[in-house]
Amino acid sequence: MGYGIAASALRGGHHVWGFDVNTTPADRFRQEGGAEGTLADVADGLDVAILVVLNAAQTEEVLFGADALVPRLRQGAVVMSCATVPPQFARDMETRCSKAGVLYLDAPISGGAVKAASGDLTIMASGPDAAFAAARPVLDTVAATVFELGDSAGPGSAMKATNQLLAGVHIAAMAEALTFGMTQGVTPEAFLKVISKSAGTSWMLENRAPHVIDGDYTPRSSVNIWPKDLGIVLEIAEDAGFDAPITATALAQYGKAVEMGLGGVDDAAVAKVYARQAGLTLPGEDE
Amino acid sequence: MGYGIAASALRGGHHVWGFDVNTTPADRFRQEGGAEGTLADVADGLDVAILVVLNAAQTEEVLFGADALVPRLRQGAVVMSCATVPPQFARDMETRCSKAGVLYLDAPISGGAVKAASGDLTIMASGPDAAFAAARPVLDTVAATVFELGDSAGPGSAMKATNQLLAGVHIAAMAEALTFGMTQGVTPEAFLKVISKSAGTSWMLENRAPHVIDGDYTPRSSVNIWPKDLGIVLEIAEDAGFDAPITATALAQYGKAVEMGLGGVDDAAVAKVYARQAGLTLPGEDE
Repeated sequence: MGYGIAASALRGGHHVWGFDVNTTPADRFRQEGGAEGTLADVADGLDVAILVVLNAAQTEEVLFGADALVPRLRQGAVVMSCATVPPQFARDMETRCSKAGVLYLDAPISGGAVKAASGDLTIMASGPDAAFAAARPVLDTVAATVFELGDSAGPGSAMKATNQLLAGVHIAAMAEALTFGMTQGVTPEAFLKVISKSAGTSWMLENRAPHVIDGDYTPRSSVNIWPKDLGIVLEIAEDAGFDAPITATALAQYGKAVEMGLGGVDDAAVAKVYARQAGLTLPGEDE
Repeated sequence: MGYGIAASALRGGHHVWGFDVNTTPADRFRQEGGAEGTLADVADGLDVAILVVLNAAQTEEVLFGADALVPRLRQGAVVMSCATVPPQFARDMETRCSKAGVLYLDAPISGGAVKAASGDLTIMASGPDAAFAAARPVLDTVAATVFELGDSAGPGSAMKATNQLLAGVHIAAMAEALTFGMTQGVTPEAFLKVISKSAGTSWMLENRAPHVIDGDYTPRSSVNIWPKDLGIVLEIAEDAGFDAPITATALAQYGKAVEMGLGGVDDAAVAKVYARQAGLTLPGEDE
């Protein structure tokens, strides 16, 4: 998604450097017009630093770790932080950035690699007006929708966690229902055709059930996302004294998928957990 | 929903008798143009008998119980059976009707009382061509969408159970996410505004979250539906050796709602189970 965001910003007329621990997408981005230069060379000239990493630990490492970015940014630059993190972590990052004179936009992203590449992300953002203003020229080129959820860090991450709770549950529920139907002779094709037009539908069902039908588990979004994101949801919930039993049950299903060696494939593969338990053969599987 | 279906069929130009153990809707229907006469008098002249009852037990009672309807129907009449029932039960009913020379359409309905009244139901139907042909003039007046799912009873009920699995899970997941968000300062209004436009949305979320926001638990569809329908799903699953852990978890939440005395109110009230556990105050509740 970082590559897609960089490409969208570049297409929007910005001067964009791309950095990644994996050199392949960074090299590709430079070949396609990304600016030349090391982060050490360019950090103090940046207006906006967009962080598209996996989790809170990576976010903290980039901002304040061994090669800390924040001390090298100019006063008034804005960090746009896109990972799914606990709201309290986002508030901590905002406080620490603020002490360094750097603005922080709590800006988790939704939409996947495809919408990142086309500049059509949804961003659930919160932060002070100055952070929104500093990030605006970039937001305008990378996002189709920016929800402005509050004037400090926290609400953006809270909404993202809430969305992930539902998204993760809905994918697993799709898998449960699709395979349940198969035990009763409902084909996956009939399932999608009928349920997508009925009260049982969800955004995730319409997006992921086709992957099961096609037997295509090329990772548009991988199983590994869900132990991470639903884990964050349950961590937040536990801190708040909130029981989330459906989330916990869905998380267990993704855990089983990881145990089956499916962590790196498309998250629709959680259907294989159900199929194996019930002795069903999904499309594309050998009989 | 029976009243709405009868009214839609009447509006469509059919001669319609309405019968109900509750005399109020039956009386109202007669005042609005329903035909006069007892079931004993008119049974042998019916082309179509539409059964809109609660479950399999009531379906069997009406068709083959003390005042059995099927022996009184003419040869070639069709029973359109609308309750959510196990597929095997639907197959049994078809076999028993067939022995009496009566057609059977496995025809579970979806859409609620509002769409029943406007003739806009979705029907998940299966049965022989003759049953579809016999029911067609009525189907055309009561349904906006008829999915034709197979040439015998069973597939209609299987698809309905699959839809109910998802619908029941999605309402409870909406409640879990909405209240989870509240623990992090996400208001129910912001939840609906943002999530309904994001990957976490579902048909049920968009339909039911407004009831929580409005604090309006007038039963459009009651909590009591879900222990029944998710119970049928789990019964079918158990017979098939299929584990449905998310369904079972959602069912437990509805069970808690019933224990709280909420069985007769709108199913969005499952949010109150979460709110009570976490000490949250939902819209419309006293502080």
